[in-house]
Amino acid sequence: MNEAERLGVREFQQTIEAIYYERDSARGKLGTFAWLVEEIGELSRALRRQEPGNLEEEFGDCFAWLASLASMNGVDLAKAAQKYAGGCPRCQATPCACPTRA
Amino acid sequence: MNEAERLGVREFQQTIEAIYYERDSARGKLGTFAWLVEEIGELSRALRRQEPGNLEEEFGDCFAWLASLASMNGVDLAKAAQKYAGGCPRCQATPCACPTRA
Repeated sequence: MNEAERLGVREFQQTIEAIYYERDSARGKLGTFAWLVEEIGELSRALRRQEPGNLEEEFGDCFAWLASLASMNGVDLAKAAQKYAGGCPRCQATPCACPTRA
Repeated sequence: MNEAERLGVREFQQTIEAIYYERDSARGKLGTFAWLVEEIGELSRALRRQEPGNLEEEFGDCFAWLASLASMNGVDLAKAAQKYAGGCPRCQATPCACPTRA
């Protein structure tokens, strides 16, 4: 496996903490949330335009801001992800068998 | 390491694909983006209320929808995350040494 294929969720969150924890903490939780939402807006634009390279960039940024905000709130993203380890948390099935919603 | 500590980014994305890819694809990219934004809204509420258990749930949900939307757009979240492997993509430093912005 190459480097990307081996990347752990916790490893990524720790990398982002090393880069941004101090300055994001100084900005505050809601200020950092506002930055995440800004990145979600950039993702929206990349989705509408369907530019592949830009899409990858914006997904990377949203993932990074989500990880940083989780760190500031004492949330381990890898532990939070365990919610999906047993299939859909609502119906417990893989694939999800919940009634279809829009 | 326990199960959460070992979780890989690609492994998580594949888990989410197995659960949701088919039904999220039927909904479409922008429809699925709308769901991600709804989850971001729930995260906002959990942040304002600072309820630890709920915060973990909402971070898990945002991570899952981000992963599903990435899959629908042919983006490998682990590869997208490599943008941060060498420190801040803007200043290349760890910790980030960019001029402070609000």
